[in-house]
Formats: sequence, structure tokens, C-alpha cells
Amino acid sequence: MTELSLGAARQILDSQPFSGLVGARITEFGDGDAVLEVDVREELTQQNGFLHGGVVSYAADNALTFAAGTTLGPAVLTGGFSIQYVRPASGRTLIARASVVHTGRRQAVVRCDLYTADDTGTETLCAVAQGTVLSARPT
Amino acid sequence: MTELSLGAARQILDSQPFSGLVGARITEFGDGDAVLEVDVREELTQQNGFLHGGVVSYAADNALTFAAGTTLGPAVLTGGFSIQYVRPASGRTLIARASVVHTGRRQAVVRCDLYTADDTGTETLCAVAQGTVLSARPT
Amino acid sequence: MTELSLGAARQILDSQPFSGLVGARITEFGDGDAVLEVDVREELTQQNGFLHGGVVSYAADNALTFAAGTTLGPAVLTGGFSIQYVRPASGRTLIARASVVHTGRRQAVVRCDLYTADDTGTETLCAVAQGTVLSARPT
Amino acid sequence: MTELSLGAARQILDSQPFSGLVGARITEFGDGDAVLEVDVREELTQQNGFLHGGVVSYAADNALTFAAGTTLGPAVLTGGFSIQYVRPASGRTLIARASVVHTGRRQAVVRCDLYTADDTGTETLCAVAQGTVLSARPT
Repeated sequence: MTELSLGAARQILDSQPFSGLVGARITEFGDGDAVLEVDVREELTQQNGFLHGGVVSYAADNALTFAAGTTLGPAVLTGGFSIQYVRPASGRTLIARASVVHTGRRQAVVRCDLYTADDTGTETLCAVAQGTVLSARPT
Repeated sequence: MTELSLGAARQILDSQPFSGLVGARITEFGDGDAVLEVDVREELTQQNGFLHGGVVSYAADNALTFAAGTTLGPAVLTGGFSIQYVRPASGRTLIARASVVHTGRRQAVVRCDLYTADDTGTETLCAVAQGTVLSARPT
Repeated sequence: MTELSLGAARQILDSQPFSGLVGARITEFGDGDAVLEVDVREELTQQNGFLHGGVVSYAADNALTFAAGTTLGPAVLTGGFSIQYVRPASGRTLIARASVVHTGRRQAVVRCDLYTADDTGTETLCAVAQGTVLSARPT
Repeated sequence: MTELSLGAARQILDSQPFSGLVGARITEFGDGDAVLEVDVREELTQQNGFLHGGVVSYAADNALTFAAGTTLGPAVLTGGFSIQYVRPASGRTLIARASVVHTGRRQAVVRCDLYTADDTGTETLCAVAQGTVLSARPT
């Protein structure tokens, strides 16, 4: 595999139209870890003004996949994930921190903690996720 | 609880700005079931032209929650869900069919099958999900 | 792969010492489906007299894996699963019915419904599960 | 709620016949954490000599539940969990370390890391899990 740089990871994210629609950015990438951030705005909310769960699950899905990309390379397929919401999400920025807990030749198992940061930078946990990502390379 | 009609469910969906951004609609609602549809467009894809997994997970999350709303009423909190992607999603329309498998006073357990329909209406399974939704009513 | 018969599946189950300790049997096997049964006895319960969740999760894990074996062959590795308990389990027999929802060359996605049957044979849903099983064959 | 001591938690475990059949013990309990251990023996294995996945999932289920008991009290119901196996488990002792990541009045979200320790005490990760546990107290 080709080891990916943060710059290369950002290029991949930029080539995902849906990530552009949501407004996601990668702020850390390497050594089994990836951090994805989304600025909260009214378009991303649900009927009560909180961040829509679908935005949180998008961030979990994508952060898990990028973290796996640091160990499996760029050709990966997300197998699936489980997410538990711990409180309604509000604040200025959604931050998804994903870390590979184990990687093999064929798949990686990854966890993700999802926080919202308020205007002072104080972070509050809003969800936790874990999932598996498969290598899409011919084996 | 107040039993919700399809019309009332559509009003709730319409009051979710993120569902408007994605372009979701409810086509069935009642008796433990809800169907959510999203027309596939370029803005919703990932880097290889397939529907982004985050769109599929958004649809699972929201369809599960609406299905639970048919038994728990409008005041619900999604506890979490697990999703497994079975193939890359492409086609004309994403269809999320969710059904309550058990409901109690405090929570419902719901499953969701996610399909894409092509121009001829032929449906192909792209993911399966299951989750729990909590009643938010004071007990 | 070698297609497995019900008899061959039973031999595999019989060669699992833990399945013997629990007292599991396979009653159906083939075409993407597997049914595993466990007779409820005091040794399998928790502190309130219900079947221990660990017995239910064992049955889900093993039924998922056997169902995948009908499509992937005997050399499989269970990747993981998600289980939601819908009510405390009691009765005469625990019945885990698993069905493959999608199978590829490398992995199968499987769902499982878990029931308890009482003395009259009436079945009550106690849990639902879904998981992934990987082919362990060299590819 | 009554805060539980390690001794009280051990009494609850001892009153679970299935935990006796498996041979589980609690080695730490308090402040959101619980550690459950199971000595590996031939009766707990599958057909290839590894620890059966059902033993690992039992340990995850029970450790999650005990960890939640440190914050929710003794009357709890396990809602469900997701487990990903990262490698076949072998060694001398299975160790399930569970920690509450968030607790509310009605439910706790808990993660669990599962290791096997060999004769030298060296630990190897074999699975990760996360789940939800509900308070069973009248509210």
C-alpha cells in the first residue's frame, strides 16, 4: 500500500461531494488516527435545533473509514458500524476522533468518539461508535 | 401519546433542516412501519460516484426513528443503531424501510432495510440496520 | 467450497466443547438459513431466573456463523455482531433463527431472530441480532 | 440507588448460575468500571481450540452490565451491545474491562475491551464491544 499523507487524505475528502455538502474537514490523519470536523450550522439540525443524528453518524462513518485508511491504504470499503448517541448534540463544531484498535491484512476495527465543542473550545461527548473497514485491494 | 398521521410525520421531516438538505421524503408511515426515500444526486456521492455511506446511515437513522414514532409518539430520542453495508449504493432512489420489531413503554427496537431503486424500479439491497429509540416523554 | 449438509453442520457443532456445555443443537441448516436451539435449564439463568443474556448472545453468535457457513463454506471467522434484547427470556427452549441477507466472496451479512418457546410451543421474541462473517479461505 | 461494593457485585455474579457454569469472577468494580475474568479451559473452546466467541460475548455482555451497575445501581437491564472480534482468542485468562462512557438517569453507554492473558501475563486484545444498559428502577 501507499502510505497516505494528511494532504492526500484531504484530497480524498474534497473529492466526496457529500462531504462538501455537509462541510467536513480533516484535521489529523496518520498512525491509525483520523479527526474529522464539521462546523455546526442551521442546515445540519433537526426539528429541535440540535445537530441531526444523521450528521453525527456521517461523521462517525467517515472518520472510521479515514482512520482505517492510515493502516489499510486508500482502497477501502466500510463494512459497517454501531453508534450510540449519549446526548443531543449542540455547539459550534462537531469533532469525530477515530482510532484503529486492530488492523490486519484484510480489515481494521476502529473506534470513534464524537464531541461537540462550544465557543470556548470546551468539548462534550455526544456519541460513540465502533466499526469495521475492509481492504478493497485484490488479495 | 398522540397517534401520528402520515401528514404529521411529513411536517416533522419538513421541520428538519438537514433532511431538507439531503432531500428526504416520507412515503409510508403507520403501524410500526416507516419508509423514507432520497433521490440520488451527485451532491450525495463519495469519491467513486457511489452514494456516500453517510447518506445511507442518515436514512437508516431517520427511518428507524420515524418507525418508532408510530408506536412511541412524536417525542422520541434515537438511542443508537448498527448498520452493515452490503454493497456500494447506486441507482436513482435510496429507499429505507423500517419496521418496529418490539415496542415497550420506554423504548422500541427497530430494523431497517436499505435499497436503491434503478430507473426501472428494480430494488437492490445496499445495507441493513437495527437500532433502539427511546421515548422522551416524562415517565 | 464444499457445500455443507445438516449432518456435517451438526458434526461441527458437536466438536465445539462450549456448545456442548451450553447444550445447543442445530435443527435446520441450508440455503442461507440456520436454526440453533438450546433447552432452558437452571444452569443457564441469571440472578432473577431468566435466561442469561450471555446464553442468548452465544446463540446469536453461533447461529449467525452457521447460517454464513451455508454460503461461505466451513472455514469462516465471525467478524462481529450487534444484539438488542427486547425482553427478559424465559420458557422451555431458546430458538435462534439466522438468515443470510447478503453474501459475497469474502463475507456474509446475517440477521438472527431469537425466540423462547414455552411448553405449548408458543414463541416469544426475546432479541434480534445482525452480524458479519468472514470467509477464512485463502483468497 | 444503593451504591454497590465489590463484595456486593461478587454476590450478584455468584447468584448467576450461568456465570458459575462459565467460571467468571469479578476482579474490579467501582466508579464506572468493572473487570470480569474467565479462566480458559477446554470446555469453553470451539472446534479449532480457540475460546468460543460465545464466551467472549458473554464476558462482554456481563462486564458491560456490571460497569453500568456502578452508576445505575443493581436494578438494570442490558439493552444490547455490539461486539467486533479482532483475532481468535487463546491464552490462560479472558479479561473483560468495561467502562461507562456516559450515564444518565435512565441508561448508561458502556465500552468493553476484551483481552486474553498468557502464562506470563502478557495481554492480547481479542475483541471490542459497546452497549447500553437501562435502569430498571421505577421512574
